[in-house]
Amino acid sequence: MRDAYHEELDSIGEGLVEMARLVGSAIGRATTAILDADLKLAESVIAADTKVDDLQRDLEARAIALLARQQPVATDLRIVVTSLRMSADLERSGDLAQHVAKLARLRFPETAVPRDLHATILEMGQLAQRLMAKAAEVIITKDVDLALQLEHDDDAMDLLHRALFQHLMDDRWQHGIETAVDVTLLGRYYERFADHAVSVAKRVVYLVTGEHADELTQDGGRPGAGQTEPA
Amino acid sequence: MRDAYHEELDSIGEGLVEMARLVGSAIGRATTAILDADLKLAESVIAADTKVDDLQRDLEARAIALLARQQPVATDLRIVVTSLRMSADLERSGDLAQHVAKLARLRFPETAVPRDLHATILEMGQLAQRLMAKAAEVIITKDVDLALQLEHDDDAMDLLHRALFQHLMDDRWQHGIETAVDVTLLGRYYERFADHAVSVAKRVVYLVTGEHADELTQDGGRPGAGQTEPA
Repeated sequence: MRDAYHEELDSIGEGLVEMARLVGSAIGRATTAILDADLKLAESVIAADTKVDDLQRDLEARAIALLARQQPVATDLRIVVTSLRMSADLERSGDLAQHVAKLARLRFPETAVPRDLHATILEMGQLAQRLMAKAAEVIITKDVDLALQLEHDDDAMDLLHRALFQHLMDDRWQHGIETAVDVTLLGRYYERFADHAVSVAKRVVYLVTGEHADELTQDGGRPGAGQTEPA
Repeated sequence: MRDAYHEELDSIGEGLVEMARLVGSAIGRATTAILDADLKLAESVIAADTKVDDLQRDLEARAIALLARQQPVATDLRIVVTSLRMSADLERSGDLAQHVAKLARLRFPETAVPRDLHATILEMGQLAQRLMAKAAEVIITKDVDLALQLEHDDDAMDLLHRALFQHLMDDRWQHGIETAVDVTLLGRYYERFADHAVSVAKRVVYLVTGEHADELTQDGGRPGAGQTEPA
């Protein structure tokens, strides 16, 4: 019985890794779609998000069934509850990748991103994808040091986000209001996506150490929170 | 034992209502702070968010302790798991109110909101506060009809959000890029705050009916999702 139980726990972990893989791929593809004004690619990202949503619902149902059937305590209970939280982070990350793709679709055949910001948005997209790949690795390895690394990597996202705002505020900005609005939202989507990847990693830290990591995982308490507004 | 248990369940519910009250007040005060460029009020909203964070941590700890000690099943289990999710929605709403207040602080002594958008931002702030007040009422009354009403009320937020973008995109916009960026982020904060209030209400629907309402509570699947991008 306990064996079947731990097999189910493992398969929930595998489901989380699969979700992380899907949303990591989604943010990378969405970034390509918006930089290349690739409508087909954007549509594929938008359509693929339902798979992430289905995976989350499935994981949640199984986690709750596990709580009901097995009534885990201590570490096992922490694992199940933390899985519920991680699946919510990952589902939300999928939404944010979808927002990027929807913006690409909205502006097609134009691109929402002016040439002089391609490099910054590309960096934000690549960093977001790397952060999620690391988060998946953290779920697999339960490596606390790697998990803590993500927070440091996320500082780079905050710097990119700030650079984006500085570029927007520059008097030489010539791309008009609509593009400024698009770029502002894009920056916010990438920054939030990164926050969720960090959050997933932090929840693993909580899982392994029992230390409550909310201060480190919520916007409200994060040093980077300030950068969600123009800085 | 079961009595002490249900008392604890009730007190968790009361904690959620208190969180909803605090974040509802926070978004109202933050809106006043940004419209009046009231630094003291903004600071008070920013400082008060720690109380929301503390409440969430306390509720989570108690919910998990309850799972461990009482090992609830069926409806009782659903209540505890749903409480964990609602507390996350409410904590996040508090962050968003704090973001509005931080923007007020960032632009002080100026106001981030130009005169011709005061009415729209005021409406968004008031609607956000009303939605959260209704969400609290739904937690107390478990009134499914009222919960479903929130989704309808949220359509008004989507319309306001769209009106905001249309105003931004208007050729007559004379407030420059920085203000366009501020207004874009503000619109996003209010729209997300409203989403979380609706999400809280939807989770009560799930609690009462057992029907999984995620499609209705996540950006990805919400009809309003499109309005998170300029429309």
